[in-house]
Amino acid sequence: MATPTARTPRRSDALSRERIVHAAIEILDADGEHALTVRTLTSHLSTGRGAIYHHVSGMEDLLAAAADDVVRAVTEHAADDADPSSALRGLSLGIFEAVDAHPWVGAQLAREPFQPAVLRIWKSIGVQLQGLGVAGSARSDAGAALANYIFGSAAQFAAGARRTRDGTERHRYLEALAAAWIEQDEDQVVREAAAELSDHDDREQFLAGVEIFLSGIATRISWR
Amino acid sequence: MATPTARTPRRSDALSRERIVHAAIEILDADGEHALTVRTLTSHLSTGRGAIYHHVSGMEDLLAAAADDVVRAVTEHAADDADPSSALRGLSLGIFEAVDAHPWVGAQLAREPFQPAVLRIWKSIGVQLQGLGVAGSARSDAGAALANYIFGSAAQFAAGARRTRDGTERHRYLEALAAAWIEQDEDQVVREAAAELSDHDDREQFLAGVEIFLSGIATRISWR
Repeated sequence: MATPTARTPRRSDALSRERIVHAAIEILDADGEHALTVRTLTSHLSTGRGAIYHHVSGMEDLLAAAADDVVRAVTEHAADDADPSSALRGLSLGIFEAVDAHPWVGAQLAREPFQPAVLRIWKSIGVQLQGLGVAGSARSDAGAALANYIFGSAAQFAAGARRTRDGTERHRYLEALAAAWIEQDEDQVVREAAAELSDHDDREQFLAGVEIFLSGIATRISWR
Repeated sequence: MATPTARTPRRSDALSRERIVHAAIEILDADGEHALTVRTLTSHLSTGRGAIYHHVSGMEDLLAAAADDVVRAVTEHAADDADPSSALRGLSLGIFEAVDAHPWVGAQLAREPFQPAVLRIWKSIGVQLQGLGVAGSARSDAGAALANYIFGSAAQFAAGARRTRDGTERHRYLEALAAAWIEQDEDQVVREAAAELSDHDDREQFLAGVEIFLSGIATRISWR
């Protein structure tokens, strides 16, 4: 005969907004954005709909909070760096790697400029550019350039990572792409680009771009 | 009584791959990617499925050809410029504006690196970087930096353009965003960024970023 203790177990630790956000990140990382529903959340947390909606207003709120949680870890780490250029390198690589580790973050950041994570990135870049002595509209221009470079690179890298599962497969894929380029166009510039393609490291190439950007900023700074 | 001349009219001019690609671009521009089907194409061209498939192998082939048609107009124009820096500016702005005018091009370029349009952009950037004296892996790094900046900016701009239909609406949207930023965080850096936000011009801000990259590349050139 069934007794009360035989019921579906309920988590006894208090449900907090933080726990719901962490559960959402686990679901998003494991199965992607389409998998984040009230049903998967209640099942993951062994709780009911009402308990979830007591802490979050809906899936939009939850996605924004999840992205902000991922981004905050990156910006807080960068803020500890006393050197602005070094902080901008760390911030850029941190966002690039966060989008790689959590592909849904890239889509979420692109979706809604009103969310806290977007402001957090803009502010974090702005603070370091201020540290470099970049002011006024030059700061906005430089901040937009770096942010758009980071998001553009992360999107390209995430698309490549979706296509290939490991290093060997990636190398084979890039060699096939290089061969296809040369087949389409035997021009010297294309052959040189194809030769660089299969051996390049995405992370290093991304950082080389950050250095180009920082050098470009340095030529434009009017020191206060 | 129905006579043969009362049948659905058929276009008498010969159907070519070029005409099909141009019809596809018209459909994509007017109604977006989901609207491009064999049915809308046959209706648009007053022809049958068989005639379409005589010239294109499928929708993937057609989307790639349509994107290549849009991109080719940009790269051919840039190739006429004798000064490499000026050609890179024109190329960057041309791709940015092409993605703005044809939002489906951005999604299509991100989807498949094997398509001709992607090689066309890489080659076009590579030829101008060669003209500037950038060689080897530095050329690949600089090319990737500029390409990812262009695609990242175009994606952000296209997302903004989808949200607001005209200049007044855009200004109101940016003012609301600036107010939301200050409400979230009253830090001086945030207030300064918010003040720049509502009056900025996307095209000018994009070009300011291109100048930052060109300045950064210039610091790295080892002249031949």
